[in-house]
Amino acid sequence: MDRFGTVAVVGVGLIGGSIGLALRSRGLASTVVGVGRDLQALEQARHRGVIDRATTDLAQGVAEADVVVVCTPVGRVALDVRRASESAPKTALITDAGSTKRRIVEEVEKTPSAAELFVGAHPLAGSERSGSAFSKADLFRDRVCVLTPTAKTPASRLRAARGFWSSLGCRILEMGPVEHDEVVAYTSHLPHALAASLAATVPVDWLPLAAGAFRDGSRVAGADTELWTAIFRENRGPLMTAVGALQDRLATLKYALMNDDEDAIRRWWDDARTRRALFEAQQPPES
Amino acid sequence: MDRFGTVAVVGVGLIGGSIGLALRSRGLASTVVGVGRDLQALEQARHRGVIDRATTDLAQGVAEADVVVVCTPVGRVALDVRRASESAPKTALITDAGSTKRRIVEEVEKTPSAAELFVGAHPLAGSERSGSAFSKADLFRDRVCVLTPTAKTPASRLRAARGFWSSLGCRILEMGPVEHDEVVAYTSHLPHALAASLAATVPVDWLPLAAGAFRDGSRVAGADTELWTAIFRENRGPLMTAVGALQDRLATLKYALMNDDEDAIRRWWDDARTRRALFEAQQPPES
Repeated sequence: MDRFGTVAVVGVGLIGGSIGLALRSRGLASTVVGVGRDLQALEQARHRGVIDRATTDLAQGVAEADVVVVCTPVGRVALDVRRASESAPKTALITDAGSTKRRIVEEVEKTPSAAELFVGAHPLAGSERSGSAFSKADLFRDRVCVLTPTAKTPASRLRAARGFWSSLGCRILEMGPVEHDEVVAYTSHLPHALAASLAATVPVDWLPLAAGAFRDGSRVAGADTELWTAIFRENRGPLMTAVGALQDRLATLKYALMNDDEDAIRRWWDDARTRRALFEAQQPPES
Repeated sequence: MDRFGTVAVVGVGLIGGSIGLALRSRGLASTVVGVGRDLQALEQARHRGVIDRATTDLAQGVAEADVVVVCTPVGRVALDVRRASESAPKTALITDAGSTKRRIVEEVEKTPSAAELFVGAHPLAGSERSGSAFSKADLFRDRVCVLTPTAKTPASRLRAARGFWSSLGCRILEMGPVEHDEVVAYTSHLPHALAASLAATVPVDWLPLAAGAFRDGSRVAGADTELWTAIFRENRGPLMTAVGALQDRLATLKYALMNDDEDAIRRWWDDARTRRALFEAQQPPES
């Protein structure tokens, strides 16, 4: 048991808190240290059993860590990884949970002593809710975690990162950071942009006639503004491409509607229905 | 009990079947007659307790009906209402469950003897699944049902329609058929168009990285092709307007991304988040 020794979680929100809970409930760490800026919030997390110790001093928090997981907002991850690498043991694994990877990995690799400890990671888990109060020990169970090693990633750290994330319940996929960002622009950031577009487009007075399709289609628009502003900025190039592809799709529908072209509308819907069926066929039974 | 006497359900799919189940489970009808084109499917529905009697002859099926509910595809509703009005008792209420209303009401009102019995209705309930096998007795509980009376609708029939739909569990709203179609273009048809756009835009090979936001955002893209082709065609004008409004919203995001305009991206997200919170605040606790 306690196979990971001391684990420092930097940023104890929904993701960091769920990592803490997962480690503690599975007995995978001897100590989970929570590092954050708000000591009161950290103490609340400690009371709820999310972490064992709390500190606002990053250097001190990671000083004895065998594993450091940086779960701060994407705009801060690279800086926190580099700072952690200055104080963590030289044997430590540093990984992160950022929703984007290209710029984070590029920034970290500008500091070779940080790159030697680091494996970029993105667990595809989350919620429209934020904060450690919503943490769940099983948030990562059966979820994909993408690791984004590069030529500079030591094989030993990659093995350690695979072991760490899979011990939380994740299924591991590996790809380059640039490819990762292109893919999640379509699979995650585009759905968020659409949910927000839908939520903002329906006039408020008409919401009493909104039912299941609106509810599900706009759900993630309830997510945190700062979090998503940062993610969109980090991945703005690939997201613009994905939005463009979706705009083309909408334009095709509008043209078919304009011409009342029954066959074109039918084909347009049927393409979508076929793709959705492929997605459903890939899901685990309970998802 | 059996306050509605004989009820004829024309078109025994998910909606018609759920009406039958709701009436029978609540003891609201002495007999539920199912009218359809496929006698074998109707007999299966009868075996499952969805209807009491089955017939493929519309004239015969409605001959003794106190209430006729037309649940056929939107492109057929007006014709079926007019045919039912020729054979139903002159004291009957005829209502429907079509997702669009303007053209249906216009067509029905071309036949004054049909208009005298008819109240257009749209229960906001459904599923991405089709067919009477998915019927549920509580499908309408706490759902809005929009009634679309006009100057030609007799007050007695409007009262009867209110009583009928509210007895199934619906909350009643009333508006004109043109306004109804403009509203549902935004609240229902647009979310369906977006779900289908999303499902068709994400490359198949990337679906393993699609998680909750994609799953919820594309759910209704699994719905029946013929059903949605017909609804989109019926409501193509208002739907084009709604798609246009959404395209504007996406264009605003793309412009903000292009300029890496943090404030604009933040405002764009925050507007959506505020609207989504208003929607959530309006929902019944369990919805």
